[in-house]
Amino acid sequence: MPRDGEQSRRRLLDAAAAEFAAHGIAGARVDRIAAASGVNKAQMYGWFGSKDGLFDAVFDEQLHRIVDTVPFDAYDLPGYAVALYDSYLTAPELVRLTSWNRLERVPTGDVLAGHTELSQPKLDAVARAQREGRVVDGVHPGDVYSLVIALAGTWSPGSLTSTASAADDEADHERRRAALRLAVQRALVP
Amino acid sequence: MPRDGEQSRRRLLDAAAAEFAAHGIAGARVDRIAAASGVNKAQMYGWFGSKDGLFDAVFDEQLHRIVDTVPFDAYDLPGYAVALYDSYLTAPELVRLTSWNRLERVPTGDVLAGHTELSQPKLDAVARAQREGRVVDGVHPGDVYSLVIALAGTWSPGSLTSTASAADDEADHERRRAALRLAVQRALVP
Repeated sequence: MPRDGEQSRRRLLDAAAAEFAAHGIAGARVDRIAAASGVNKAQMYGWFGSKDGLFDAVFDEQLHRIVDTVPFDAYDLPGYAVALYDSYLTAPELVRLTSWNRLERVPTGDVLAGHTELSQPKLDAVARAQREGRVVDGVHPGDVYSLVIALAGTWSPGSLTSTASAADDEADHERRRAALRLAVQRALVP
Repeated sequence: MPRDGEQSRRRLLDAAAAEFAAHGIAGARVDRIAAASGVNKAQMYGWFGSKDGLFDAVFDEQLHRIVDTVPFDAYDLPGYAVALYDSYLTAPELVRLTSWNRLERVPTGDVLAGHTELSQPKLDAVARAQREGRVVDGVHPGDVYSLVIALAGTWSPGSLTSTASAADDEADHERRRAALRLAVQRALVP
């Protein structure tokens, strides 16, 4: 793709991420994405086929980005959970996109089905850490992973209780990080 | 209200709960709610003012119902979490309504603000159990509550990983209940 095309595609994906995170899949408007990115709708459909195809591309990119910015570490699940807590403050989009995807498309089962290239290495790492006595045994690796994500998401943009904000006092963040670290450590580390 | 009115209002709230749980607030259609309940739109607006007012009534009722069906027990947080897991299988609506409310209306902060009559007794009970050495100390009662709800929601209809379904094998449910009980016990009970 020529350089101009790459830049347009980048602007389109960024505008689409913001639009989908704010309004969901059904609620997103391609007109607003086109206006915000300066990419016309014909080009958008040429690249991604449909609004759903554009969502898939945005979601896939965000999933791969979080793996790079917050690498999974089965040997330090408390530290991983706290790093996720911090990432949700600065980049709430991924959790909101995942929640919309859950509500609008995947009411039951694995919301990341079709992304086993991302999940399988984590489950393998958990199983290895369990064999080495570094993670509690007797819990399925997939359940360990789900429990860590659930705990890390206690104050996430998908929280069923209280969602943290970058605007909160630093004392609140420190209190939550300490509670999260303690809970993950006690729950999952022998 | 006459008996006929009570029955109509009941049918309306049930139809609205199903519609909002499926499609969210913006996505819900009052025409579909009217058709499903047999209550005309003029009556609906007379009772609840607007689609948003109807959502508020539905959400408030569901919140009070879960308190009755799954009473909070600060002295048995593992049992409470497992009871919530089971309730999400048979009545996924409350979590979905909460998630829609989170995404569409309350991006940060307490999603149950305005319902302190429901939350305050739980926080008081946690604080009492902490003083009696029955719940881990040094974690704010509100954070204990958020952590329990997060763990109980690991496989909920708002899960960021895997949502359980009543159609899953009983062995899967038993495996998840055991993992949940273990995690809550280890994390929060001294």
